[in-house]
Amino acid sequence: MSRLSSRHLLGLEGVPKEDIVTILDAAETFREVLDREIKKLPTLRGLTVLNLFYEASTRTRISFELAEKRLSADSINFAKATSSVSKGESLRDTVQNIEAMKIDMVVVRHASSGVPYYLTKCMDANIINAGDGTHEHPTQALLDMFTIRRKYGKLEGLRVVLVGDVIHSRVIRSNIWGLKSMGASVALCGPSTLIPHGVEQFECDVYTNIDEALDGADVVNVMRIQLERQKAGMFPSLREYTNLFGINKERLKRLNKNYTIMHPGPMNRGVEISTDVADGEQSVILQQVTNGVAVRMAVLYLLSGRKEEA
Amino acid sequence: MSRLSSRHLLGLEGVPKEDIVTILDAAETFREVLDREIKKLPTLRGLTVLNLFYEASTRTRISFELAEKRLSADSINFAKATSSVSKGESLRDTVQNIEAMKIDMVVVRHASSGVPYYLTKCMDANIINAGDGTHEHPTQALLDMFTIRRKYGKLEGLRVVLVGDVIHSRVIRSNIWGLKSMGASVALCGPSTLIPHGVEQFECDVYTNIDEALDGADVVNVMRIQLERQKAGMFPSLREYTNLFGINKERLKRLNKNYTIMHPGPMNRGVEISTDVADGEQSVILQQVTNGVAVRMAVLYLLSGRKEEA
Amino acid sequence: MSRLSSRHLLGLEGVPKEDIVTILDAAETFREVLDREIKKLPTLRGLTVLNLFYEASTRTRISFELAEKRLSADSINFAKATSSVSKGESLRDTVQNIEAMKIDMVVVRHASSGVPYYLTKCMDANIINAGDGTHEHPTQALLDMFTIRRKYGKLEGLRVVLVGDVIHSRVIRSNIWGLKSMGASVALCGPSTLIPHGVEQFECDVYTNIDEALDGADVVNVMRIQLERQKAGMFPSLREYTNLFGINKERLKRLNKNYTIMHPGPMNRGVEISTDVADGEQSVILQQVTNGVAVRMAVLYLLSGRKEEA
Repeated sequence: MSRLSSRHLLGLEGVPKEDIVTILDAAETFREVLDREIKKLPTLRGLTVLNLFYEASTRTRISFELAEKRLSADSINFAKATSSVSKGESLRDTVQNIEAMKIDMVVVRHASSGVPYYLTKCMDANIINAGDGTHEHPTQALLDMFTIRRKYGKLEGLRVVLVGDVIHSRVIRSNIWGLKSMGASVALCGPSTLIPHGVEQFECDVYTNIDEALDGADVVNVMRIQLERQKAGMFPSLREYTNLFGINKERLKRLNKNYTIMHPGPMNRGVEISTDVADGEQSVILQQVTNGVAVRMAVLYLLSGRKEEA
Repeated sequence: MSRLSSRHLLGLEGVPKEDIVTILDAAETFREVLDREIKKLPTLRGLTVLNLFYEASTRTRISFELAEKRLSADSINFAKATSSVSKGESLRDTVQNIEAMKIDMVVVRHASSGVPYYLTKCMDANIINAGDGTHEHPTQALLDMFTIRRKYGKLEGLRVVLVGDVIHSRVIRSNIWGLKSMGASVALCGPSTLIPHGVEQFECDVYTNIDEALDGADVVNVMRIQLERQKAGMFPSLREYTNLFGINKERLKRLNKNYTIMHPGPMNRGVEISTDVADGEQSVILQQVTNGVAVRMAVLYLLSGRKEEA
Repeated sequence: MSRLSSRHLLGLEGVPKEDIVTILDAAETFREVLDREIKKLPTLRGLTVLNLFYEASTRTRISFELAEKRLSADSINFAKATSSVSKGESLRDTVQNIEAMKIDMVVVRHASSGVPYYLTKCMDANIINAGDGTHEHPTQALLDMFTIRRKYGKLEGLRVVLVGDVIHSRVIRSNIWGLKSMGASVALCGPSTLIPHGVEQFECDVYTNIDEALDGADVVNVMRIQLERQKAGMFPSLREYTNLFGINKERLKRLNKNYTIMHPGPMNRGVEISTDVADGEQSVILQQVTNGVAVRMAVLYLLSGRKEEA
């Protein structure tokens, strides 16, 4: 099986299409394993993965830990709350210590953009970005693409709308790079206060009117709206956000016939997405979660450089 | 080996006697394993168990985790403190996400009665109730019964007194259903403010005088008194509770000769139980803890539907 | 392979030289394993280790957990934050419960000196002290000695200076006992307010002048200064501490030619140690971290009484 062009997965910006295809193809194999009664493979036996979570997370952490255990790796969990971060040690010293303990791979989530990149400069371990600040969340975008490809058999030529906080969403950013690399057409939509200056660099269609954005699209990927942003005055009220950008049944009429609804979770039901849409037949939100484990198994496996023993 | 009539263990109310016997008999096998030098079996290899603890717990969580590891299952721990519950996701969405990750079994503790039942409606995994609100704590009652049966060779015909907060204790509730199903005679005792209206439905003898309750009994299972209840005005003072209901050496004289002292822990020594009684020869409190691991191994094994490879 | 004279590792005071040599020799074997691609051995398969951390810790907990997993033991983690300690259970009851669950080994860290010793009185498990109050931190001193021995091929006859809070540092205390037992010459240095009455009992050279202490020494082991001590008035200011005791390049001139810089971490860079010294060629600070895993593997292995299957 072919390998990736990088030892790390820091983001999807600049990742060649071949690498994305390699990951999605490997994930297909692991996705089948998840339907077996015994979901465990010996592939990464003896390899140690540190889950370094400086931000609280349920689903991403559990998804990675499951992926690790199903590949028979040893998982070590580190969460900020129980650590000596409060002792004021520098990130660099923490990282060098981890390196010195001869950990093979690090899955890292951090509130500051760039921390995963910084880790690659301090240590030999393979680094996987599990979300860094407003930068990227590449495994989320990979599982989104995997889910779309499973349904349509392709990504090329599909129209995907990413709705939400375009300034701050690392999920949007990773989806933009990945989808464009795979030949999809990408539209961004959100309140103008949440569209960044310089959005042109993404070379996407940009909308502040949701109905226009949805027109003729295949996939809508609805981002969680961070309630904190509203408090910070970045949009007037939740009700207004729901009125102007919330995805409800009425709005779906503008989409292509065989449309798809996605959300990375956790959902604010009744805010950015209505419950009937979230639970509707065209929603693949729970498939995204299942596929996430398979995609993470693929990333861990490919970065490890191990031969498959499935 | 025979199987259980349910895929879940939500409580002991309505569980047929045959199921309880099946669990206790399987636990007997696992109890012997715990005396071996190597306490680990390959029985549940490749199976994933999520320990979903929304309430703080030391002993129950560790006991389950040990049971899982000794059966070679993969354990994933989720504790409220480090989760995204604070992000306001609904329990239903959290549960559906867990389901989507293809976890095989969920051990759940929650402050709200009925959460384990609710989980069975949202997911395919086997659900084990590790304590829900004031409803049930079935593995605690099973290990209590296992401990009694080990000593007397039977449960039928024994007189068991459950002392404490009859309104709120999930351990009392599970013990009532289990013991009655197995043919034991059950007496309840506590302050009248902590005896529920409609206590008749349990078809037990009810006492507000501890000495009368102990008269001619074989087993006393002393419940932890929650200090919060006293603050809430449900009984006047700890000293009064101790005077009226605390189990001390003097009171043991009323019991049958070969009596047994139990407590599910953690103990308030000097409040609901005196230290000499807790540490006395007739106390099986630490045996309860050991047996808890064996009983939980039995429940995990039987619900999994796996064949034993011991 | 020869065994140790004790079933526990509570400290290095009174531990015979033969035991220290046995541990350091075993660690040498495990250190080589850490350089292999597959760092995992089946040695402790089926054995359960509880990591009982009543004090926050990152590196020591991860180091032990790694050592356990690389020996194929099952690790159970207990951290104070998520425990029922808040329910007010006595340490004795907690410990007896752990014992009853038939855990094989306990790695314990606690703010109170003597807790590991207390555990040996309540349970059969092998107890490993991972730091207790101001008493001892024996695996830290063992890894320090291992690191020195790796460089010089011996400990005997070397001059080692321990700099810092001699009153409170458990790392200093363990190093004193271990180094003296192995025939090294030990010097202590710190502010007079942080030198204990009765320091003579250690039979070390004691200095309050760092330059005199460093004169002709081979190894300087720099302790973290606890910023809390300064707040408690035990030394005037951080700047003064740095001026009087901080290890910087200028001061290193007094050392022997082939000198070594050590620090148990986490470092206060610019306080007790300057960054150029910490990262200099003679610094073995990161080697200490790597060696820590090997030394802990050796201690776990030797205390378990298992035969090696490497």
